[in-house]
Parts: sequence; structure tokens; C-alpha cells
Amino acid sequence: MAHNMEIGGELADLGEFGLIKRVTAKVKIKNESTIKGVGDDCAVLNYPDKRVVVTTDLLTEGVHFNLVYVPLKHLGYKAVSVNVSDICAMNAIPRQITVSLAISSKFTVAAIDELYEGIHLACSHYGVDLVGGDTTSSLTGLTISITAIGEAEDAELTYRSRAKPTDLLCVTGDLGGAYLGLQLLERENELFRMNPTVQPQLAGYDYILGRQLKPEARTDMREIFKMLELKPTSMIDISDGLSSEILHLCEDSGVGCRLYEERLSFDPQTKKMAEEIHINPLVAALNGGEDYELLFTIPIGEHEKVRNHPDITVIGHMTSKEEGTLLVTSGGGQEIPLQAQGWNPLKSD
Amino acid sequence: MAHNMEIGGELADLGEFGLIKRVTAKVKIKNESTIKGVGDDCAVLNYPDKRVVVTTDLLTEGVHFNLVYVPLKHLGYKAVSVNVSDICAMNAIPRQITVSLAISSKFTVAAIDELYEGIHLACSHYGVDLVGGDTTSSLTGLTISITAIGEAEDAELTYRSRAKPTDLLCVTGDLGGAYLGLQLLERENELFRMNPTVQPQLAGYDYILGRQLKPEARTDMREIFKMLELKPTSMIDISDGLSSEILHLCEDSGVGCRLYEERLSFDPQTKKMAEEIHINPLVAALNGGEDYELLFTIPIGEHEKVRNHPDITVIGHMTSKEEGTLLVTSGGGQEIPLQAQGWNPLKSD
Repeated sequence: MAHNMEIGGELADLGEFGLIKRVTAKVKIKNESTIKGVGDDCAVLNYPDKRVVVTTDLLTEGVHFNLVYVPLKHLGYKAVSVNVSDICAMNAIPRQITVSLAISSKFTVAAIDELYEGIHLACSHYGVDLVGGDTTSSLTGLTISITAIGEAEDAELTYRSRAKPTDLLCVTGDLGGAYLGLQLLERENELFRMNPTVQPQLAGYDYILGRQLKPEARTDMREIFKMLELKPTSMIDISDGLSSEILHLCEDSGVGCRLYEERLSFDPQTKKMAEEIHINPLVAALNGGEDYELLFTIPIGEHEKVRNHPDITVIGHMTSKEEGTLLVTSGGGQEIPLQAQGWNPLKSD
Repeated sequence: MAHNMEIGGELADLGEFGLIKRVTAKVKIKNESTIKGVGDDCAVLNYPDKRVVVTTDLLTEGVHFNLVYVPLKHLGYKAVSVNVSDICAMNAIPRQITVSLAISSKFTVAAIDELYEGIHLACSHYGVDLVGGDTTSSLTGLTISITAIGEAEDAELTYRSRAKPTDLLCVTGDLGGAYLGLQLLERENELFRMNPTVQPQLAGYDYILGRQLKPEARTDMREIFKMLELKPTSMIDISDGLSSEILHLCEDSGVGCRLYEERLSFDPQTKKMAEEIHINPLVAALNGGEDYELLFTIPIGEHEKVRNHPDITVIGHMTSKEEGTLLVTSGGGQEIPLQAQGWNPLKSD
């Protein structure tokens, strides 16, 4: 109960139960579906009138994040966002999360406080209750495993498998920024390693850095769809790159697609950074990942509803499966098969 | 969809989506509360008439398990059991799990198949649906994060916080075996390391080895309580050792307790192994952990219902908080304050 240990004290002295009490002391339950949060063998929830949606994501140090340039507070926030993004992809409302950590002995209590500050900030931003978790040690590095729980009416849910061959393919926001933000961080880190007197040059890149370090899940889209009286026929979030996500929708729905390069527009910082490292921003959008925007399909008859919406861009349309999954290039209008070259989390190099 | 890769092939070649398809290919949904399992951004569940309980546990290589002597199939089974045990501690029925893995490149596809064989076996044994997860790489070692979801009527739920000062303190099964099974495995492993021609001497210790390697969650107790028309006033599962769990019940309920040493009986193998390594089996029960039995309190008026039950032992009673949390020793009847000397997962040595 008492939290009178010194900041910077050793985690082992605090112990598992001490740490759990410390990091959950400030938790206030916000949702009426949360009957009991942290503090028993299980959390207890109540969903009498809704479908319950559940998703989980695991982030490991050195694979998903590099603590040399990722602040722990941002990491905590991002770990929640990536789970909430999956809830958004079902057109559901996030309500609860559990957070499990494996921590190596190099971490101080102050470091874990930092991480939880980001987690609590995200919980507050998304209106989500932290209801449980597990905390243990690891021999090396930090692992964060989060499970998120949300709710929706059955009729509101958007699956990956219900796109029709004539549907329009739409995306929220802009793509490629998160990947190029990461390239920038890695470049500056490399320069710093080679010459520690060089200060990182990050000015003018706040947008793509924010996209990488503090992504926001599109919880706003559920309301926007309601206002537009529009229900996507299928939806997925963009975590592994646009190519990979489009191919998921096509495979699961049994359809093909045509994606038009000319329909994709990029943020000026995304374009500038892509130019600096000599890649096409299209490649960052297709294969980069971590944008956490939503990719969805709508019936062609609903085109007017999205045509001029500032948050939504029509980037192509679905076709019959036989027509394949194609990228139509700008200029010449070449048709190139889409390939899932997104990040493979099982390749650690 | 096709699973034609060679066994022993590289995980990186299979990729995340290939691996997920491979390990979930045989999953058949068993519970009507599971609307949609693996294969979308979220699983979709339906709990119109029940409370939903949620728990999560994270196991890390080198801290929770040593792959030198823990077979992967057993590890998979145990990882599910420890979560199901938390559901049992709420007097609820387990229904779904999600499984997240971080895998280092030293693992083959065959090894992951082994691990999932144990997970599927446990799902089948407990009647639980595998509905989601995440699979990624780690720089070192294996991490398993499981979230379990279950259901109960509100009135059936047993919390830690509702023990009364006159309640009887009861435990299922016998204690100390899992800890002594671990001591045996570690001793034989040490001897083998010093002289690899020595075969491990495990004969005659099948019970305590089973307690350590393949623990069973007490899903049977819910039915037993029903048959006895008995509802525990409080309940917790024994994962960290009897002392630590008793202190949780006392602290959360605002009561004290007297635990009687003479009431604890031990399996013959537990006693024999304790003798071999010169410890009191009581110490293994109090501080060893991993027994995954249930510790609970009942009103004193219900004593007759449990008195001769083969699965239940009355080991003490609760008292007012002011009387403290005491162990009453056999023989002299000394009163010693209970101490939570159970395993601290934040100490990695």
C-alpha cells in the first residue's frame, strides 16, 4: 500500500507485488463494464448487451524497439496504441487492457515508472481501464505483452472477410511516415555512435517522428462512420504495411484488387525524408508498416459519402479474385502484382 | 493455407502468418461464447448472461523454466494450466485463451510444433478455445504470454477480499510437490553437467515430477463446491507458496489467521525428496509455490461439508486482524508469524 521506496531503488527489493501496487496505485476505473480491476486472481467484466472483442500484441526489445532512441514513456503509449488499433479495426470501442512485463535487472524502478506513465497516459486518452497483468524478470531485455478488450454491437463489427468485388478500397490518414521516422532515428543514432559529439539532427521532422514514436489509434473513425451513415464491408489496421494488409483483405474475402499509385499522397516530411535516403515514399507506404491507419472497403454506391472527406482517401477498388491483386503505377499505368514485403517479425536481422 | 514446409525448416522462412496458420490449423471452436476465433484483428466473444473474468501470465526462459530439462510439450501445457488456475480461483469456467510467443532464432519449426502440441492438449483437456495471439522473434530465449478468459454468474464469483474472522481456512490436494520436483530436476541436471555419462535418477519420483512439469488446474473444484452446496467466502490459487497466498487473503480481507502445521500432510514422494535434500516439507509447502491448488475460506458452520472430503483439508482458521497471521507449529505449539518468502519473480538469481 505504501509507496515510500526511493525512486531508482532496485526492482528486486520492491518485489512483484510492491511493483504492481506502485504502478496501479493511481488507476481509477472509467468504464461500467469493469466490475473489478487489478487486485484479484482475475479481473471481472460485464458485457450483457454487446459482443466482446479481444486482441493481444507482444513487443520485444531489439526487435520491435530500440531503447537507445525510444523513450520509455513513448514506448508505453505505443504499446497500448497498437492494441487499441486492432480494436478500432473491428469498429469496436476499447474498454480494458492487461499489461504484462518481463524486465531485465538493468531496469530501475524509475524506468518502469516512465514506462507506466506512458501506459496510463494512453489509457486516459483512449478511455481504457488497466485491469490486470503480470510482472516478472527476464534474463535480457524488456518484453511488453498487452491484451486489449473492447465492445460493439454485433451488427457494427467489421471483419476482414466481407469485401465484395466491386467495393471501393479506402484508407484513413497518410502512410509511410512511421517507417521514415524510424529510418531517421536509426540514421541519427548511427552517426552518434560513430561520433558522440554530433548532435542528432531531428528538427523539421516532428511529424514523422511522432508517427513512429507516439502513434495514435484511429478511435475517431467509429464516430466518423456513424456520422457518415457508412459501414465498411471489411476493415483491417495497417501495422505491417499497406501491401500486406490489402492482401489479407483480398485473401480473407476471396477477391482481387487494383490499388492506384496516383491515389496515394504523402506528408511533405515523409516525401523529404524518402528523398534524403533515396527511396520512393510509395515503398515506405507499401512495405514500411506501423502507420496504424485503417484500411477498409465500402460499397461503390457509397462513394459520395467519402469523396471529399478529409480523413478518408479512396485508393482503389476490389475486383474478382481472378483479376489478381494489382498495383497500377502512375504515369505509364503499369500493373504490378502486390507483394507482401512487409516486416517479418520472425526475421530478427 | 498449405502446410507443406519441411519439419525442422526455418521459422523465418515460414514467417509470422505461415506459423500462425500452421499452429492454428487444427483448432476447432468448442464454446458457444466464441463467435470468431483466430484470423481477424480481434477475436469476437459473446457473454450476454455472465460475468467475464480475465487473467494473464507471462513465462520467460531462464526465469520460469529451463529448457534443458523441461520438455516443450509440457511447457505449453503448463503455461495454459497456470492461467486456467487463476480462472478456477474465481470459481469460474475457463472458455478462451490467447497465446503470444517471442521466439529466438535457435528454435526450429518442430520445436514450436511441440510447444503447441502441449497448448492444444491443455485446451482440449480444459475445454478452452485458442482464439488469438501474436508471434514474434526475440533476441534471446522464449517468452510465453497467455491471457485466459472465463465466465461465471456474479453470485458464484469468489474474491480474495471476503474472508471473515471466524472462517475455516481450507486447501485442495497436497502441497510442496512441485517445488521438490524442481529440486530433483535441478539436482540431476547438475550431476549430468558435471559428468555427462551419468543417467538422471528420476525413478520413483513420477508424482513430484508431474506436479512440476505438468500441473493440473483444479477445474474440478467448481463442481465439487456445487455438489457440496458450499460457496467459499474467499479463494486464491497457490502459485507462489502457501504463506504468500494466505497473506494475500488476510490482507485483502482485513483478517488474521492461524495455520496449523499438524494439519498439513504430504505425499510420500514429497517427504522422501525433502529428506534427501535436508529440508522440512513444510518449508516447500509454505515457500515453494507452483502447486496450483486452491486455498479458500468457508463459514465455520459449513465444517461438516468438508470434514471428510478427500480433496479438501481444513488447515486453520481466520481470526481478527489484531491477532496476526500465525503458523502454529506441531509438538510444542509455538506461534510463528507467517512470512511471504515465496519466489520473487523480480529476482532472477
